Amino acid sequence: MSLSQRKPIAAIATAPGEAGISVIRVSGKDCFNLVNLLFKAKDLTSVPGHTIHFGKLRNLKNEVVDELLISVFKSPHSYTGEDTLEISCHGGVLITREVLITILSTGIEPAQPGEFTHRAFLNGKMELSQAEAVADLIHAKSKKALASAHQQLDGKLGEYVKTFRQSIIDATAMIELELDFVEEDVEFANMDELMKLLNNLEEDIEHLMETYEAGRLVKHGVRTVFIGAPNAGKSTLLNTLVGKDRAIVTEIAGTTRDVIDADWTYDGIYFKLTDTAGIRETTDRIEVEGVKRSQKAITQADLIVYLHDLSRSDEEQITNINALRNLAPETPFMAVGTKKDLTGEKTQTRLDLDITISAIEMENIDQLKKMMKERALENQHLDTSGLLVTSARHRDALEKTKEHVASAKRAINLGMSGDLLAIDLRSALQSLGTITGEITNEDVLDSIFSRFCIGK
Amino acid sequence: MSLSQRKPIAAIATAPGEAGISVIRVSGKDCFNLVNLLFKAKDLTSVPGHTIHFGKLRNLKNEVVDELLISVFKSPHSYTGEDTLEISCHGGVLITREVLITILSTGIEPAQPGEFTHRAFLNGKMELSQAEAVADLIHAKSKKALASAHQQLDGKLGEYVKTFRQSIIDATAMIELELDFVEEDVEFANMDELMKLLNNLEEDIEHLMETYEAGRLVKHGVRTVFIGAPNAGKSTLLNTLVGKDRAIVTEIAGTTRDVIDADWTYDGIYFKLTDTAGIRETTDRIEVEGVKRSQKAITQADLIVYLHDLSRSDEEQITNINALRNLAPETPFMAVGTKKDLTGEKTQTRLDLDITISAIEMENIDQLKKMMKERALENQHLDTSGLLVTSARHRDALEKTKEHVASAKRAINLGMSGDLLAIDLRSALQSLGTITGEITNEDVLDSIFSRFCIGK
Repeated sequence: MSLSQRKPIAAIATAPGEAGISVIRVSGKDCFNLVNLLFKAKDLTSVPGHTIHFGKLRNLKNEVVDELLISVFKSPHSYTGEDTLEISCHGGVLITREVLITILSTGIEPAQPGEFTHRAFLNGKMELSQAEAVADLIHAKSKKALASAHQQLDGKLGEYVKTFRQSIIDATAMIELELDFVEEDVEFANMDELMKLLNNLEEDIEHLMETYEAGRLVKHGVRTVFIGAPNAGKSTLLNTLVGKDRAIVTEIAGTTRDVIDADWTYDGIYFKLTDTAGIRETTDRIEVEGVKRSQKAITQADLIVYLHDLSRSDEEQITNINALRNLAPETPFMAVGTKKDLTGEKTQTRLDLDITISAIEMENIDQLKKMMKERALENQHLDTSGLLVTSARHRDALEKTKEHVASAKRAINLGMSGDLLAIDLRSALQSLGTITGEITNEDVLDSIFSRFCIGK
Repeated sequence: MSLSQRKPIAAIATAPGEAGISVIRVSGKDCFNLVNLLFKAKDLTSVPGHTIHFGKLRNLKNEVVDELLISVFKSPHSYTGEDTLEISCHGGVLITREVLITILSTGIEPAQPGEFTHRAFLNGKMELSQAEAVADLIHAKSKKALASAHQQLDGKLGEYVKTFRQSIIDATAMIELELDFVEEDVEFANMDELMKLLNNLEEDIEHLMETYEAGRLVKHGVRTVFIGAPNAGKSTLLNTLVGKDRAIVTEIAGTTRDVIDADWTYDGIYFKLTDTAGIRETTDRIEVEGVKRSQKAITQADLIVYLHDLSRSDEEQITNINALRNLAPETPFMAVGTKKDLTGEKTQTRLDLDITISAIEMENIDQLKKMMKERALENQHLDTSGLLVTSARHRDALEKTKEHVASAKRAINLGMSGDLLAIDLRSALQSLGTITGEITNEDVLDSIFSRFCIGK
């Protein structure tokens, strides 16, 4: 069975730049016939699906544009579900553009960002949450983020959300049963059971929502701010952490445009490390100007690391660690003694530090890394069901679902009639449906797919 | 028949960056069996060539790394001639790296730059000049450069060079014939014929060599320098030329690291436009400092465009155009009157200008572009056989061949013996063989393929 085929579209699906090969993706109605006009080596309509064909692509003036490979995917067995070609040409910037222009000269239209995945969704090749996972997978900056995107792409989130859906359907069935008997004024024996069901559902939704904070950290990284007196060793530690991975890190960071000092990945978790101006303490008050400069970074942080220079006297530095901690009381906080190598045997501070290190002698650096990960995730629900909500859209949909369930519970407690209850549950079902895409609207879809790259 | 298979190698073959898809190329001995360890969906050794297989790639710990497509090419029907896989995965930076690392974990080694094409050459899939054309195709910055690379990739240059080869073999046969009869002291009737053959050969080689200058312009671009008094309209003209194509131009220019002001392509020819500091004339001598600043650009130029502001009096500008022309007497030169729109009906100059324009009113701009192309290529041999020598290596090999042929001719004129002649011709044959790669050495090959990108 062939799925419905939309107008044919094409786009370069690989990253721009000079490389061995580039791939141009073509999908939609008549795309085999249209590309046949340019490719005489084989009749693409008559070859089997999932086969590859070598030949020259010629423009409509019959000039050779490139010698290339065309992979044929027949509807419905393709990414989009439509007839699809993947054209693998020489990877130059100009030649790739020429091949694309030649393809478009047959009347095939340039694809919009995410349009191939959008079609895959519309053709039922994937749920909406899976489509969103494709983008997450591409933008992932750590192994945990990859794993989480994979899980979502596998449909795990969708499956779990469907158990909520089933609960709401079960609840609706109970109410309808009651409605049928309402004129006979029977005791509604199921009311307790209904409440229990809704309570469980509310709890499950809450648990899933609680993973969002961890999901956000996994997907967008742990924003880590280093604070401390000037020359307390902030930059040295930052360089030590990033260390030999700097090249890799830079390559990934170069693709974002955030104000990040350095990206660092440890044990599958992606950290965005920010260095701040030094903060001084004067007569037990933390210097206003220094704090002001660091304030924004601190309030937005997911982890604050205070560095205390062990080689200097406490008087020159900040001793009121509680005051620092109170700058963002909800945020995980670590106090680290630095330059341990310069202090000899005895530790020079009377402060209660979490760990003391020497970046020069690499002392306790591994322990520090481990502690950073633990602290960053200490309040997070990373390993309950293994599922993570990483998308604000999903979190909002769950929030709305929960509100409708809560509203249904209130209606029961107030003894309101079953049909009003049914309205709440129908709304809950609708909110839930926006996650997997059963319920959706053009605006939501446009906003989701416009964030994709062209060619995906 | 399978060709000899070298150790298996792998590399990312698409450009780095976030995109819809990335492709990882794997080639060499046992690569099907090795990737089978990671891909359980199909037995890659048992599927037919030129087919595509969808499934999950798992690492050696059995964790899913990505869901992807694997294209199978069986020796000798592949780019390298070896068993080859092209793995098309999600196009993120991290996920592509993870897939590559997983592939390498089976013992497959990372490929060196150009290693796939190097193998294609070693396996006789292409001649050396064709292999070089692959790199030219990828780096091409204009349609003419693309066309020239395509011609070379098609083997046209190799075929033409083989006609030279045949002439030398014919000449050698004549000499050997003479050597057989030398003791009988027969009149060597073929001597005139031999000279004629060598003369023709020398001429053909020269003609081909003469295309090198045009080939260089086509491949590397026409270095165009704008000179003129300050505010003569150099930058305005430059912007007018680049105009709406600027975005495209920038994208291509961004991949080079030359000191180029702007790249511009017109009618298939790629120009590198350089703006210079204004030059003044004082008492009929061209201002020394201004010239000095522009000197380097002028002496390296392939085209010099002098702009004369028609809206100002000649006295404020340079009137001694011959002096300008003599700064680089060999280089094509154009004198252009600018700001025609400000002069009303009458032209304000007594100079002999090639063309007068108004960038603001777009007057004569198309004619100027046409003239720039004509002047740039006026001494070039662009359209004799259609063949272009674009590589300095090929030009040098032709030069050496020509020298050996000339030496053979001298030997004949001096009445030297046939076996000495034969040595010259053998040397000529060797020089010629380095173009297509019949004669070669590891150093030359390494130097050629190291200029390729990784994954090609």
